Formats: sequence, C-alpha cells, structure tokens
Amino acid sequence: DAFLKVFTLNSNPDLAKEIADQIGVPLGECSVTSFSDGEIQINIEESVRGCDVYVVQSTSGPVNQHIMELLIMVDALKRASAKTINVVIPYYGYARQDRKARAREPITAKLVADILQVAGASRVITLDLHAPQIQGFFNIPVDQLVGVPILSDYWIEKGLEDVVVVSPDHGGVSRARQLADRLKAPIAIIDKRRPRPNVAEVMNIVGNVQGKTAILIDDIIDTAGTITLAADSLIENGATEVYACCTHPVLSGPAMDRIGNSAIKELVVTNSISLSKEKQSEKVVTLSVAPLISEAIIRVHEQLSVSVLFD
Amino acid sequence: DAFLKVFTLNSNPDLAKEIADQIGVPLGECSVTSFSDGEIQINIEESVRGCDVYVVQSTSGPVNQHIMELLIMVDALKRASAKTINVVIPYYGYARQDRKARAREPITAKLVADILQVAGASRVITLDLHAPQIQGFFNIPVDQLVGVPILSDYWIEKGLEDVVVVSPDHGGVSRARQLADRLKAPIAIIDKRRPRPNVAEVMNIVGNVQGKTAILIDDIIDTAGTITLAADSLIENGATEVYACCTHPVLSGPAMDRIGNSAIKELVVTNSISLSKEKQSEKVVTLSVAPLISEAIIRVHEQLSVSVLFD
Ligand SMILES: Nc1ncnc2c1ncn2[C@@H]1O[C@H](COP(=O)(O)O)[C@@H](O)[C@H]1O
Ligand SMILES: Nc1ncnc2c1ncn2[C@@H]1O[C@H](COP(=O)(O)O)[C@@H](O)[C@H]1O
Repeated sequence: DAFLKVFTLNSNPDLAKEIADQIGVPLGECSVTSFSDGEIQINIEESVRGCDVYVVQSTSGPVNQHIMELLIMVDALKRASAKTINVVIPYYGYARQDRKARAREPITAKLVADILQVAGASRVITLDLHAPQIQGFFNIPVDQLVGVPILSDYWIEKGLEDVVVVSPDHGGVSRARQLADRLKAPIAIIDKRRPRPNVAEVMNIVGNVQGKTAILIDDIIDTAGTITLAADSLIENGATEVYACCTHPVLSGPAMDRIGNSAIKELVVTNSISLSKEKQSEKVVTLSVAPLISEAIIRVHEQLSVSVLFD
Repeated sequence: DAFLKVFTLNSNPDLAKEIADQIGVPLGECSVTSFSDGEIQINIEESVRGCDVYVVQSTSGPVNQHIMELLIMVDALKRASAKTINVVIPYYGYARQDRKARAREPITAKLVADILQVAGASRVITLDLHAPQIQGFFNIPVDQLVGVPILSDYWIEKGLEDVVVVSPDHGGVSRARQLADRLKAPIAIIDKRRPRPNVAEVMNIVGNVQGKTAILIDDIIDTAGTITLAADSLIENGATEVYACCTHPVLSGPAMDRIGNSAIKELVVTNSISLSKEKQSEKVVTLSVAPLISEAIIRVHEQLSVSVLFD
C-alpha cells in the first residue's frame, strides 16, 4: 500500500491542515515562496517517492498565481516520483468560461483542465463545479463532491420555520430543489426578464414567498449583484426574512458592501475559498468542507466509491 | 497566402506596436482585461480565421499573469480557427528553473513549454534564452534570436577606446566572446570562488583590465547583485570606467538602488522587458528589438531562414 501524503499550497492552508488532521497524517513539508522577480519557488522538503499525494489548492484569487503554484507543484511531484498526484481543488476557478458564448472566446475552464493534465495530475477531487460538464474536460478521474448536504445540515440545525428555498436565477433551480428536498420545503424562482431591449429587467417571482422565510441558494456568489437584488425583491414580495447560502464565496469588488446593505440577514458559505480579513463580517457564517474532503480522500485512497458521500 | 496578423497582450504593448508598424500591418483588435474577481477576460475583436497570427508577450513580471494571458489568448485563437499561432516571447520567464539542481525541484521552464503547446501554439520566436537547451523543451519550431548584434552596434557607435569585454561569471563567457569579437576587443572573466566554506567569496579577475574601459555583459540582470559587485571589483583592479549591458532587464527588488550606487556609468538594455516608471533612470539606455523581431516575423511568414539575422 502506498503512503498517503497531503500537501498545501497558498490558497487554503487552514483547510488543508484540517483535512490532514482529520485523515490523521501530518501536513507534508513544503515551502512555496517567490523569488525577487515574482517567479514561484517550490521546495518539497520530504520524500514523496512511491506515495499517493494529495495537493490542496483552490484556484481562487489571485487565480493566475494559484493556478501556476498548482502546476509547478504537480510538475515537481511528478519529477520526484510520486505514485499518484491527486489535485484537490475545492473551488475550480475560470469555471464560468466553459463555452464559447460569443465568437472568438476562449474556453479557459478546458485550458486549465488540459494544463493540469499535461503537468502530470492523475486525479481531481473538486466541489460543486459551476457546470458539471467540466468533468468531461478532463481525461483523468474527477470526483465532484456536493456542498448541499453541508448547507442543509446548517439550516436544519438552525430550525427556521415556514421556509421557502429560492433560486436567484433559472440556472440554479435544481440546486434549490436539492436543498428544498432536505429541508422538506417548497421552492421559488426569481424569473428575471427584460420585457423589451433597453428596458430595465423585471424581477418576477415564480412560486409563493408571501409570509415565508426565504433561503436563497447559489453555487458562487461573486459581486453579489444577483443575490442582493433577489433578496430585495423577495422582501418586496412579502417574504418576512431572507437568508442566503452558497458553496463558493468569491465575494469580489462591491460584494461585501452590497451584502452589508441588503436585506440578507445571514450569508452561509463554505471554506472552499479562504476569506481574507476584509471579507469577514458578522453576517457571514463559514462552514468547513474538511470533513467531506478528508472522507473523500480516505475513500479514494482505499479505492472505495466516493459517490456514497452525497447520496 | 495566409494573412499575417500581430496581436499584443499586456506585457509589451509598445514593442508590439513598433513591430506591427515595421511589418506594415495594424495591431490586431483585442481587449485583455480582468473580471471583478481577477480572472482574465480576452475578447478578440476581428476575424483570425485562416490567418498566420503572431502574439507578442514576454513572460516577465507579473509572470504568472502574463503566462495565463498568453495561454488564454492561444486557446481563443485556436478555437477561432487561426491557421498558425506563433508566440513571440522576447523574454522567456522561468528560464532559470531549467533543471533539477536539488532533489524534488520542478523544471518550470519545461512546464511552461508543455502548457504553451497544449494550449495550441504552433511556433515560438524568442530572444536569448537563459539556456539554449530550452529550445529542446518544445516539440514545435523555436526561433531563438540573438541580442548581441543590437548591443554591439550601440557600443561601436559610442566609440569607446581600449575596451575589454567582461563576463560577470563563468556561465557568460561565450556571450562575452561574441560581443568582444564584434568590438575587436579582448575579454576578461570575473572568477568568483569561495576559498573555504563560510568564508567570503573572492572576486578574482582572469584577464587584463588595468587602465581599460570595461563593458560587462550578461543575458539577464535581475537583482543586479552579480553585476554591481563585478563592476566594483573591476574598478578596484584598475579599470578606468565600467559600462554594463544585458538583453533582459528584469531589475527586481534592490536592482535600481544597487545600479544607482555602483561604479556602472551606463547600463544598456533592450525592451524585451518593458520597464515600469520606477525602473527608468538616467543610467539606463534602452535599445529596441522591434527591428530584429519584425524582420524575423517577415522571414518566418515568407518561409525564409531566420538564422541569417544573426550570422
Ligand atoms: N470571472 C468572471 N466574472 C464574471 N463573469 C464571468 C467570469 N467568467 C466568465 N464570466 C461570464 O459569465 C458568463 C457565464 O456565466 P454562467 O451563465 O453563470 O455560466 C459568460 O458570459 C462569461 O463571459
Ligand atoms: N526567478 C529566479 N530568481 C532567482 N534565482 C532563480 C530564479 N529562478 C531560478 N533561480 C535559481 O537560479 C539558479 C539557476 O540559475 P543559473 O545557474 O544562472 O542557470 C538555480 O539555483 C535556481 O534555483
């Protein structure tokens, strides 16, 4: 049996430490720094020969830096004779560039898959890909874990009453359905549409929110425009309180201000992306994906099915 | 015959404009910006279908950003049916990570070659690779241009007398020889060695510099430690004046202070790396590689040999 080793890069060191602790191994010794000119310097300070190595790194911002760290680490592990190189990417960046929506656009989500493979990755473990089709961009095994059970456990524990689960757009309806099933609640959908070109969008709500506690759910909250507008329109339409949750808290640009000023009482996220100090707020509750990921790593290492984790 | 188009990304827009002007084509319409979360967004705003496309981008700092811009651009061009995608990389970053010097090191120069190819590059045009072996990291044609003729033309024009060309270390001797041949001058070598472990290095000079005007030459000047120590020891050993030149002015960290405080009268560099405002100084003279690169592009496009440019 090959040794299992867990390494971290710079995106999620705390999460990686939690994962290693829960698996019961020390975090691998490795320094990831920069030379004076900004080139990444990686020194792996223990043998990985013949080992099953798990590298924890979200391709969150600074995304290009984090991608290059991961590629260089995979390259170094490959040349150091690791047996398998399993990249654990809790948040897979560039996932919204997954198709040519307009002429001459790149498909960067596929590019990242290609370069991870050519660097030498043997497997990907990830969480809530923005589009499940991204699994098909890889020719190596991809285990996609699911964040809904972690979020739903939180809401069940909290014990809100008369809940409606709301998708902030058409794309998120089946995610809302999954959460609603676990909460035994109905769903509603924010049905944005533009009546005529150059006329403001109308926020129409499909489903009943009157007098209810709404829980908005999305996979990614980035600038928080969609989710805060959705929250406001839920209140306008008679919801008594609005909560929100997502797996991946990108929270860029105006996000924290918008959330602060919005009707959202509480935003529940996971630590797939590590929140910088400026992004921490009393409104934001963070749940750890370490138990989920460490369990997945153990099952992969023991060659057991991972899908049971979210059935 | 396929159309020739030249595009620029964010590392060297001025150089790219000069190159396009000298070839006699407009610079391709393209915007390279970032989304709110820092992910790169590229919009190519004209057709490239069936074209021979040349993309100008040094992988200078911010190196990881510049590498990702180049990869994403190549991906977009490939999906937009460009006939050939020729990447013009005046400065090839990560070139000093070209071998395993210690256990478990990455070979990032090879990784970058691999990812450029998997993205879809058909050819590389570059200048003074830190190690010529990097050509072999590619399985596509690599045209390596040479900076010495540009630097030597400058020194000939300047008309310094009683010159000795000096290599600041053992690795640069053949480059110094090339410059010396063109200047019809002798060479000298700074022969650093450490007499015993934990004893300061001795700067021994092989060759005669007494009463002479020294011109130091290197390929890359990064933190400028090597070159400024060399300059000081040349003066101590009787050189009357010290000049320096290099192809790639990385000039990171303490470089500008060190050069400012050193015996170097003038530092001559090329625009393979675009100098930010803070790195411009009265001591630094910049020569353009646009004539060299535009000539190389024209010859590649007309399927003529490029090597004549530096014979
Ligand atoms: N990092 C990003 N930030 C904001 N928008 C993006 C980003 N990446 C891609 N997009 C755009 O988001 C759209 C896809 O998002 P979606 O419809 O949610 O899959 C496309 O129009 C992309 O141009
Ligand atoms: N960006 C960088 N800045 C400073 N040193 C580097 C850089 N990249 C690699 N190196 C180191 O430089 C050495 C190789 O330089 P050289 O002997 O000039 O080829 C190796 O020991 C590398 O670890």
